Amino acid sequence: MEKKLSPQNIVNKLYENDPFTKWLKIEVLEIRKGACILQMTIRKEMLNGFAIAHGGITYSLADTALAFASNTHGRKSVSIETSISHTESLKEGDIITATTEEKNLTNKTAVYHITIKNQNDKTVALFKGTVYRTSKEWEIG
Amino acid sequence: MEKKLSPQNIVNKLYENDPFTKWLKIEVLEIRKGACILQMTIRKEMLNGFAIAHGGITYSLADTALAFASNTHGRKSVSIETSISHTESLKEGDIITATTEEKNLTNKTAVYHITIKNQNDKTVALFKGTVYRTSKEWEIG
Amino acid sequence: MEKKLSPQNIVNKLYENDPFTKWLKIEVLEIRKGACILQMTIRKEMLNGFAIAHGGITYSLADTALAFASNTHGRKSVSIETSISHTESLKEGDIITATTEEKNLTNKTAVYHITIKNQNDKTVALFKGTVYRTSKEWEIG
Amino acid sequence: MEKKLSPQNIVNKLYENDPFTKWLKIEVLEIRKGACILQMTIRKEMLNGFAIAHGGITYSLADTALAFASNTHGRKSVSIETSISHTESLKEGDIITATTEEKNLTNKTAVYHITIKNQNDKTVALFKGTVYRTSKEWEIG
Repeated sequence: MEKKLSPQNIVNKLYENDPFTKWLKIEVLEIRKGACILQMTIRKEMLNGFAIAHGGITYSLADTALAFASNTHGRKSVSIETSISHTESLKEGDIITATTEEKNLTNKTAVYHITIKNQNDKTVALFKGTVYRTSKEWEIG
Repeated sequence: MEKKLSPQNIVNKLYENDPFTKWLKIEVLEIRKGACILQMTIRKEMLNGFAIAHGGITYSLADTALAFASNTHGRKSVSIETSISHTESLKEGDIITATTEEKNLTNKTAVYHITIKNQNDKTVALFKGTVYRTSKEWEIG
Repeated sequence: MEKKLSPQNIVNKLYENDPFTKWLKIEVLEIRKGACILQMTIRKEMLNGFAIAHGGITYSLADTALAFASNTHGRKSVSIETSISHTESLKEGDIITATTEEKNLTNKTAVYHITIKNQNDKTVALFKGTVYRTSKEWEIG
Repeated sequence: MEKKLSPQNIVNKLYENDPFTKWLKIEVLEIRKGACILQMTIRKEMLNGFAIAHGGITYSLADTALAFASNTHGRKSVSIETSISHTESLKEGDIITATTEEKNLTNKTAVYHITIKNQNDKTVALFKGTVYRTSKEWEIG
């Protein structure tokens, strides 16, 4: 009897218990093995002192995408090191989309590039994340 | 007549218009030229799917500290590139403190190391941030 | 009278005075505005204590590619912050190729992803570099 | 019978088989558990097209320091992700010293900050490195 969860089920498990991702109102557009596409809208309470989105907001979207993409392989994976460049500012109402790209996958670690674009398809942030792949499997129940 | 703002006044200006930093309930413990110490408490709505603080929360605290510390010199400064390692997980109720260290300051750029520790003085995140220092001064009014 | 140098001429100027790039025996496969492809072979004197290429070798190839690609726009550009993940080890005789991708270009800064692959088209290193674009132009003479 | 190697012996083993570190003429000033101090001199063949030390040279010194410091704990450790900011240029004849600081040590990973200074005690590069700690021990013989 197969006990392994599908990529979609793993993300459901992660998401249903994730209050901050819910606060961000992140919408899952696509999930497959090793990848995901996520979207959210910049709200007033996400702005910083320059009246643009706080850097922590785009980081949070990318970090969630990293968790979702890396865990879909079925093994619990945790972030080791991440970096982000904020290349364009964002205003209230802007819609941002994070797309993951798996650049390397070994037994112990994996590396992802995550690009965040706005509604005009302009790149607003470039994120690189490395995860450690634990030996614990995601299981049913 | 001096038009320049003090480090404390610059941070006040940044903070009074920063809804996300307010949502995080960041408390300013110390401000001086090129440095700051910030503190906040992990709340339930900041947790992720593993019931620990979302990586975006510690990043947001560090990124705010980067903005505060780099702007205290009097010139408007913006983040170019940041990286963070999450070295310890955080639970609801944990109190975290970010302390900045200015590692380099040139005419155009500056580099900061920001260490985040929990209430037991254990390091929970290591952040490195580079800013671009614009030629615009913070001015009164 | 046009005084600006072509991308190829800028790289020639950089290369003809670059003893370390010559020591590495880097070969320029392609040069165009904002991009380049470079190649080199791992020699015995480039190995580390594990009998694989020292991390500094792949970094050096990527850093040279960053300098070449970013300077081809005609303005003198200097590295601000770089990161690299070594995803696969390299042995003596391996041939590595660095390909740049310009991810962002603004008036003051630019961001590049540089992928290094071996002769079997396997990714061996992932590099991300941010440069500061000075106002000095590359000029003839 | 004790089979474990001392920090000094581990570094000797790494160094005696490291042609590139020898080419750099790296001198080991200090070795202890989790730390090291390394020094070298900038030679003509290490310069780039701007007549200053190639970024790969300071990276190579820091990366060697990362390998030495992380392996002294007795378990074979490999670099996962590294970043470096070059904050000051270097000329022929400059003497640079890398000092490591262990910022985090867990069962599987460790994080180091490495600061490189010149002969005038000015910081010339800031390096951050994360290693994966394998389960293989350094042993005699």
